[in-house]
Amino acid sequence: MLSSTFTRLTNPASLASAAARRHALRAPLAVRNLATMSSATSLTKDPSRSSIGGASSYLSNVSDFKIIESTLREGEQFANAFFSTEKKIEIAKALDEFGVEYLELTSPAASTQSYNDCRAIVDLNLNAKILTHVRCHMDDAKLAVQTGVDGLDVVIGTSSFLREFSHGKDMQYIIDTATEVIQYIKGEGLEVRFSSEDSFRSDIVDLLNLYRAVDKLGVNRVGIADTVGCASPDQVSELVRTLRGVVSCDIECHFHNDTGCAIANAYAALQNGATHVDTSVLGIGERNGIPSLGGFIARMYAADKEYVKSKYNLAKLRDIENIVADAVGVSVPFNNPITGYCAFTHKAGIHAKAILNNPSTYEILRPEDFGMTRYVAIGHRLTGWNAVKNRVEQLGLPLTDADCKKITNKIKNLADIRPLSLDDVDKLLRRYDEAKTDDSHHAILEGIDTPDQITQWQ
Amino acid sequence: MLSSTFTRLTNPASLASAAARRHALRAPLAVRNLATMSSATSLTKDPSRSSIGGASSYLSNVSDFKIIESTLREGEQFANAFFSTEKKIEIAKALDEFGVEYLELTSPAASTQSYNDCRAIVDLNLNAKILTHVRCHMDDAKLAVQTGVDGLDVVIGTSSFLREFSHGKDMQYIIDTATEVIQYIKGEGLEVRFSSEDSFRSDIVDLLNLYRAVDKLGVNRVGIADTVGCASPDQVSELVRTLRGVVSCDIECHFHNDTGCAIANAYAALQNGATHVDTSVLGIGERNGIPSLGGFIARMYAADKEYVKSKYNLAKLRDIENIVADAVGVSVPFNNPITGYCAFTHKAGIHAKAILNNPSTYEILRPEDFGMTRYVAIGHRLTGWNAVKNRVEQLGLPLTDADCKKITNKIKNLADIRPLSLDDVDKLLRRYDEAKTDDSHHAILEGIDTPDQITQWQ
Repeated sequence: MLSSTFTRLTNPASLASAAARRHALRAPLAVRNLATMSSATSLTKDPSRSSIGGASSYLSNVSDFKIIESTLREGEQFANAFFSTEKKIEIAKALDEFGVEYLELTSPAASTQSYNDCRAIVDLNLNAKILTHVRCHMDDAKLAVQTGVDGLDVVIGTSSFLREFSHGKDMQYIIDTATEVIQYIKGEGLEVRFSSEDSFRSDIVDLLNLYRAVDKLGVNRVGIADTVGCASPDQVSELVRTLRGVVSCDIECHFHNDTGCAIANAYAALQNGATHVDTSVLGIGERNGIPSLGGFIARMYAADKEYVKSKYNLAKLRDIENIVADAVGVSVPFNNPITGYCAFTHKAGIHAKAILNNPSTYEILRPEDFGMTRYVAIGHRLTGWNAVKNRVEQLGLPLTDADCKKITNKIKNLADIRPLSLDDVDKLLRRYDEAKTDDSHHAILEGIDTPDQITQWQ
Repeated sequence: MLSSTFTRLTNPASLASAAARRHALRAPLAVRNLATMSSATSLTKDPSRSSIGGASSYLSNVSDFKIIESTLREGEQFANAFFSTEKKIEIAKALDEFGVEYLELTSPAASTQSYNDCRAIVDLNLNAKILTHVRCHMDDAKLAVQTGVDGLDVVIGTSSFLREFSHGKDMQYIIDTATEVIQYIKGEGLEVRFSSEDSFRSDIVDLLNLYRAVDKLGVNRVGIADTVGCASPDQVSELVRTLRGVVSCDIECHFHNDTGCAIANAYAALQNGATHVDTSVLGIGERNGIPSLGGFIARMYAADKEYVKSKYNLAKLRDIENIVADAVGVSVPFNNPITGYCAFTHKAGIHAKAILNNPSTYEILRPEDFGMTRYVAIGHRLTGWNAVKNRVEQLGLPLTDADCKKITNKIKNLADIRPLSLDDVDKLLRRYDEAKTDDSHHAILEGIDTPDQITQWQ
């Protein structure tokens, strides 16, 4: 029903005009303005890039990162989540087809079924590496190794809060236990990550000591985790940059979204030297979750479109989200990045005009790259005549700009009563066009006082 | 139905133990560790703060900002939005009661009803100042002044994209037009903001020239707008910091959420000298919108809880979101900050244990401050015995820790088949307790193979 009030844009103009190219060539070499510093074609080549700031650093992995997809671990901690073995396999295959580099699974120590599910997913022989997430205990590590996974994500709480209230261990005990567990996993020939929990409320000296110790033990990755969702991008930048100078192994990041910064934090981490980012489909997880796979992809696409397109099967995203939304009994949020039903809907008149001239004016994500479609809404009070004109052209009607402006004013007046469906807008356009043959088109407009009149036309 | 599977936590322990205080007193004065640098009580006093990085700058307005609530302007550009006059008044009153400093309304030039609605909301005499958002045209400005609003938010496109594809004006023309419009508005004694559009794809030299010019004309605020949602927090920090050195007036920021960074960008802007942030309820707006009022509040609460509590009526947030969600026909997203139904739900066993000891272990937002309640889920395969023990205590049953551990293992096994409702968990706990009187409690557990058996108990 919603879509019926919008007009689908076909054949949008997508190239800059000669004038635009001239403009770019004449522009001064403004410091830090990517759009004008690079070649003339950059205006259309890189519309998704900001021209302000963001000089890339030698630390940045924005164009060289890996996704650890944790729908089957963090996502299983979502309030509604109860995945059958079959559903886990369906999700794992879909994520593998999308192209994520790793799948992280619930600890086999959690329950018998969790153990069996690990084995079942290992047996799929996917392209993605299979990890499981275990507490820093030898019992859990041994059980995990038996499942045949490619690697273990080992976690232990390190903040003073967790030291006191969760497991009550002191730092030396943590290091000793970590050493035993890591050496065991490495001895088994598996990949191993060692992560603190609640890293942003931990003592920085303790943290760095711990990470340096496990780096020397040869872990593949250290992980930092904003377990409570308190971190902001500046704090993430600082911690990751500091950590980058302390360890030589890879750095994985896990961010919770309690204060709406999870995606921005993941991006800040990559900019400052992190290499791996945890996501889940729709962001499901404890409380309100972690970076959504789709939201994270949107952010990275805006940073390096070609890299993201080369690695991931973007058109698969919507299917995966629908599978997971069904499985956990939620709706895809109306404002979900990329796949939310209004992510590519343009409504304001001035936006519609510019979008019709060049979609990249108001879009940094190309809907086509995600198997999505752009819509411009026209039957509402904020509409503009350029959007109406575009619909006239789609319908092949020989109306003038002056006609389109008159009809637009009528639509605005009617839409103050209620929005018009696209059907009704079309009826109005067609009847006006017909009426021009006997010059009764002004009378047509004057005779309409409510949207209901148009709806009742046969 | 969802809530029936969770146990509400009553009387959570909220204070640090003596041991925690001793720990903090003994801790070294680690550089940049807020938790250990301040007094012993800081462990419980400021659990929402990260201890890593984020040294506050003299530029920061994190504890001194104003909200420009734009549900009735940006929000009206949301695909589904059609607000009647009565609905606009209801929303305006609710936001005023919440305590936002400004309400921004659709331009009276958009339609006749838009003009009348401006007047109607002005006539409410709310505490919040009333703004309307107009294009940089004298006609629009004059119409807006007639409505009796307190101020005008003037906007013009400035990026090379918009200069070419939207209105086609060059920079000198923009400055000349802006001068005329601003002087007119000031002459009428109204507050005036001048904003560029698509600021992050604009030429930085053009932008700064323009802002300096309008600052000298005496505007109250300049605005930067990430109209397409391409900016990242590092770019926002850089632009706002630069702008802060160029103008003496206030700085307003408007961020779109296409790549999931809108809230983080708003926070970065405040950290670097911005003074005003645009929000909308649930973030509704063009495409997938702008920072949601609730998400932004969550972020700022995490940064300065007492300041946010002193300014805003936080318990009103859920009502406002429900009003707007109903009005535009969407559901509050399952993962909405603060009010999403799982924002305060804890599921993993190790989380539940810590939460029961001290809620701030895994929570930086106190649900009570928002009129919300904490839940710990217990009937699933990831449950832990501490959570089960808490439920036993709530029910007043005299079971031992050993009993709780045995029952927890049984719940895990059963929940591999399907999650147990809280009712069924309670039945199991009660029957086990009764059976202890004749020592048949082990037999009870052994006799249960499926959750359905418990469900069928009378």
